[in-house]
Amino acid sequence: MIHVAVLGYGTVGSGVVEVIEGNKALVNKRALTELNIKYILDLMDFPGDPYENKVVHDVNVILDDPEVSIVCETMGGVRAAYEFTKKALLKGKSVCTSNKEMVAKYGPEMLQLAKENNCNYLFEASVGGGIPIIRPINEALTAEKLEAITGILNGTTNYILTKMQNEGAKFEDVLKQAQDLGYAELHPEADIEGFDACRKIAILSSLMVGKTVNYEDIYTEGITKITADDFVYAKAMGKSIKLLAMSKALENGTLAMVSPCMIDASSPLYMVQDVFNAVLVRGNMLGDAMFYGKGAGKLATASAVVADVIECARNMDTTLPIFWDAEVEKLVDIADVERAFFVRAKAADKAAVLAAFGGAEVVEVAGRDDFALVTSVMKEKDFAAKYEALGDKVITRIRIEA
Amino acid sequence: MIHVAVLGYGTVGSGVVEVIEGNKALVNKRALTELNIKYILDLMDFPGDPYENKVVHDVNVILDDPEVSIVCETMGGVRAAYEFTKKALLKGKSVCTSNKEMVAKYGPEMLQLAKENNCNYLFEASVGGGIPIIRPINEALTAEKLEAITGILNGTTNYILTKMQNEGAKFEDVLKQAQDLGYAELHPEADIEGFDACRKIAILSSLMVGKTVNYEDIYTEGITKITADDFVYAKAMGKSIKLLAMSKALENGTLAMVSPCMIDASSPLYMVQDVFNAVLVRGNMLGDAMFYGKGAGKLATASAVVADVIECARNMDTTLPIFWDAEVEKLVDIADVERAFFVRAKAADKAAVLAAFGGAEVVEVAGRDDFALVTSVMKEKDFAAKYEALGDKVITRIRIEA
Repeated sequence: MIHVAVLGYGTVGSGVVEVIEGNKALVNKRALTELNIKYILDLMDFPGDPYENKVVHDVNVILDDPEVSIVCETMGGVRAAYEFTKKALLKGKSVCTSNKEMVAKYGPEMLQLAKENNCNYLFEASVGGGIPIIRPINEALTAEKLEAITGILNGTTNYILTKMQNEGAKFEDVLKQAQDLGYAELHPEADIEGFDACRKIAILSSLMVGKTVNYEDIYTEGITKITADDFVYAKAMGKSIKLLAMSKALENGTLAMVSPCMIDASSPLYMVQDVFNAVLVRGNMLGDAMFYGKGAGKLATASAVVADVIECARNMDTTLPIFWDAEVEKLVDIADVERAFFVRAKAADKAAVLAAFGGAEVVEVAGRDDFALVTSVMKEKDFAAKYEALGDKVITRIRIEA
Repeated sequence: MIHVAVLGYGTVGSGVVEVIEGNKALVNKRALTELNIKYILDLMDFPGDPYENKVVHDVNVILDDPEVSIVCETMGGVRAAYEFTKKALLKGKSVCTSNKEMVAKYGPEMLQLAKENNCNYLFEASVGGGIPIIRPINEALTAEKLEAITGILNGTTNYILTKMQNEGAKFEDVLKQAQDLGYAELHPEADIEGFDACRKIAILSSLMVGKTVNYEDIYTEGITKITADDFVYAKAMGKSIKLLAMSKALENGTLAMVSPCMIDASSPLYMVQDVFNAVLVRGNMLGDAMFYGKGAGKLATASAVVADVIECARNMDTTLPIFWDAEVEKLVDIADVERAFFVRAKAADKAAVLAAFGGAEVVEVAGRDDFALVTSVMKEKDFAAKYEALGDKVITRIRIEA
């Protein structure tokens, strides 16, 4: 029997208990032993909860109990979570987490501690909720040199963009609706400004290069400037607009960025609708593979944490290899990266805008007083110079991802 | 250093050598040791090949060499492959295979031998080519009770159906074209009659239920009766026709079948085009997750074999848990399974056909002398009785997969 403690009895933490108990026979069979939830750490009491007698308020009860060998960190935040994770690992207790901030910020430090203490720090649930993506990268795509990872990693923004696309709705209205439905938070910045996707691509990029991609170094742009008008043109062009989190091995280094992008209907990411997430991974031998599913949700995320618990249980006293060094990977400046851009401008300014972007494809939609163009492939900085010089003559621009 | 032998220097076998050599540094890093290809078994010599001096014709050279601890079986067939795999496992050598016939037919026997001899029998490449699907089921979705697996598992038929859909082409013409391009074999029965997909879903079904799903027990229907006319109606209904390989946990047992099905645009399988494969897995906690990528091809398939080699190298003298018992899972009779059906018939017979399928939705396309309907949900046997009674009045029928 292996004793497990759950830190934080919120959405994911209570989901972990529900998955372990709900699929008990299967989980124990696959863990090759019985898993017993011995403690649940939370500030609150849960009177009437079937597990109320497991709830403790003092983390030391867990840390000092040598019987506990696996800890699920489902607290969120990086203060208490950092302290508790570190202490657990130092005591040789494996930690399985859904906390992307922790992993993005302290991943290599925790992995090193796990190694030194003969245990594991696993974080499948930190990216893509229940979609297996961390484990496939670490354990399945091991014969590949990974060349690119492109993901729709935030369900809230994908829900908003899908609604805007399908219903022609405005950003503000859909955001309000998503908040009412509980898909978006009252303070939605982490989602709509791309910060959440940024943490997740930092983790995936780090695993891709085997070094640390600092999330602070990742260019991050959210979806707040995307309008219903942009979708009119996207549709006319057979494209969609998605918030993409990308990491690419370019000739001169690694590019990592988060930005709304127009993508073509031929991309497998095009069909990723609503709150679904997907991660497209390109390997030098395999070509493209995609992992798709629910990127959030109590049970989906909890299922990924429990899969980590099962892997820890199967590998007691062994540290599984995860290649993520503390050394920081310097990213290429996106100003030097080349791509095409979608530009929308007033019809009245067409001549000036076309003159600035010679050789662009023009897109027009009947009955509108604006028009759009797709530039040739150029460096971000060259595009930005031309675009800024046009001042009020241009309305908006969106990156195009081939 | 770990010594590896490759059995069969054909497409996949030579790909294995290419992946191990081409990604040498990465592969060795992830294997936690150096992998050395010591022997290549083939009937032929390969003068001028950079590995010609590794080629041997006698399998006993490999079996009797205690230095060889991992064998890649990329021969195909089930005669020599069976004998060589068995002998290798009996000597404690792990076997990594791309041979779906072997796995479908002898999987549990080989897994048992591996267990008894402290080594591994791994077969990631046997389903979905380079797409990680076996390992995600065995190692990532471990907290899930798997409820259904639905796959597009054969690239050749998906290529043919995609061409038929996009170009309105005839089955025979596209098959000929696929043969000319090397996507389809001269004797294409294994693909177009669904036998290949049947072997693959037998493997996935077995892993889903943890027992043996015999491929002979799986109802299998190919795509040879699908016509350009059917696609006219599929399009009018916003659907596509795909060759689906399915396994479902129903209340009264497990259903496994291979059949062309109409699927809706809202299915993530809808966008799977050309030679791509995808596997949609439904778990009771996670909901749907999909794994997508190239289902065939030399390097993609070889990459999956090498990932298995790396996992064996990381786990020497340990048998990884794979839950697939020899006990045979009895399948439910598809005659008792309920679904809706698409029926196409001559316009002249409309009254009789509609009378037989009361309550059906009618689909008409202007300027045609046929029409179609979608029946209500009914048992296969009840549908079949009505359909057969109509004799010449009906042209064709296609299952609808919700």
